[in-house]
Amino acid sequence: MRIVIIGAGNVATHLAKALDANHDVVQVYSHTIQNAETLANVLKHAVATNDLSQIYPDADLYIVSVKDDAVASVVDKVKVTSGIWVHTSGSVSIEVLKHKFQQCGVFYPLQTFSRDVEVNMTEVPFFIEACNEDTENMIFSLAQELSKSVHKADSAQRSKLHVAAVFGCNFVNYLWSISNDILAEVGCDLDVLMPLIKVTTEKAASISPTEGQTGPARRGDVKIMEMHEKMLLPEQAKLYRTLSQCIMEKYNIRYEQN
Amino acid sequence: MRIVIIGAGNVATHLAKALDANHDVVQVYSHTIQNAETLANVLKHAVATNDLSQIYPDADLYIVSVKDDAVASVVDKVKVTSGIWVHTSGSVSIEVLKHKFQQCGVFYPLQTFSRDVEVNMTEVPFFIEACNEDTENMIFSLAQELSKSVHKADSAQRSKLHVAAVFGCNFVNYLWSISNDILAEVGCDLDVLMPLIKVTTEKAASISPTEGQTGPARRGDVKIMEMHEKMLLPEQAKLYRTLSQCIMEKYNIRYEQN
Repeated sequence: MRIVIIGAGNVATHLAKALDANHDVVQVYSHTIQNAETLANVLKHAVATNDLSQIYPDADLYIVSVKDDAVASVVDKVKVTSGIWVHTSGSVSIEVLKHKFQQCGVFYPLQTFSRDVEVNMTEVPFFIEACNEDTENMIFSLAQELSKSVHKADSAQRSKLHVAAVFGCNFVNYLWSISNDILAEVGCDLDVLMPLIKVTTEKAASISPTEGQTGPARRGDVKIMEMHEKMLLPEQAKLYRTLSQCIMEKYNIRYEQN
Repeated sequence: MRIVIIGAGNVATHLAKALDANHDVVQVYSHTIQNAETLANVLKHAVATNDLSQIYPDADLYIVSVKDDAVASVVDKVKVTSGIWVHTSGSVSIEVLKHKFQQCGVFYPLQTFSRDVEVNMTEVPFFIEACNEDTENMIFSLAQELSKSVHKADSAQRSKLHVAAVFGCNFVNYLWSISNDILAEVGCDLDVLMPLIKVTTEKAASISPTEGQTGPARRGDVKIMEMHEKMLLPEQAKLYRTLSQCIMEKYNIRYEQN
């Protein structure tokens, strides 16, 4: 396949490099020509451009991999071409492409990419949506060349995946920042918690987080919970109580005075 | 050292096996004789008992490894002996031992143990407290034989470690159970989130969770946050809002209407 990559950020870069192994990325667009050139230079024979009107009209696949809120305006500015158009955004509907292109879809990797960190693409879950079955088959197969974890998901399902990731990663990271603050008070950092975090993760993956739940709230241990709240800053104590109450409600636990 | 283990649960079992390699666990107590025997049978030459009045009077070290709320009553029932007495609880003060034994301390492994899951003891952080310097040196060295991560922590500090673990593991696990519920709605489970969770964990460990924070709340992306809240069950939406507000307050982010 002859592929055009529109965007030169982290997702665009990792995808372009991975796809360039079996296919030909022929053109890279970025608003900033230096960024387009930086990416084009690590590909076999891609040409850089910063002019959307110069996008090649004859590629097989166009991948729009820009920030969520820039997808619509990029699509607005490009000329209509044949070939498949996809975007890579978790929270942008396929509709943004549908009104302009006959063959279109979504090619969403559920992973966070950093410029200098190698990612094992075969482990990255891809979620595919397309405007018709032929297009779906094409991009599903393409994703399978990169990853062993390829799924179908329409735009509503993709939003669910995103919100699940907010709870499971963004919010989890925030809780770790609280742990880190508390550990700093006793001269430690998150390192001392990592072995326990690792086991918690393994347990969540193997027996499910609902079965694996432990801790004072799960036991309804009011003595410990009250002691903990007293040790915490007011905002931390409030969140401690909220989360403990959520857990107790989930498992129908009542405060046990012991 | 001649060691007596009081308790035959998961912590007692893992510690007894690890200590028996370089020392002699001579006696195992459990309320239930079968449990004491099960553990004693996998040790070099330990004898089982279910009678606290029969605890050997001449061991070098006594490790009380029972449930938090059972430590005091066990200590109450045993005879005074020479030798060092320690308990292994995160949230029980050293005071419970101090009033009875001249040499006493705490030997707290910050890890969760499961009966049939092997634990790499060298990675487990141990937190040590003792009634005097000699005792502290003794049990600190003992912990160093097992683990490369040994720290001092008084009872107040140990409570902080425990509450940090509640945020970083118990509450995190709860958030993963919410992710899992949301993923189930689209026919997936936590597996599809694991690559992202892994990268989030690595980033938290390497650059700190405060620097590594990402997501709609960190960006103040009100459009996405409102969309997410609408997709969630009422209790989930409430927690989503609470956590998003915590993150926005931490980073001084205001809602941005875009």
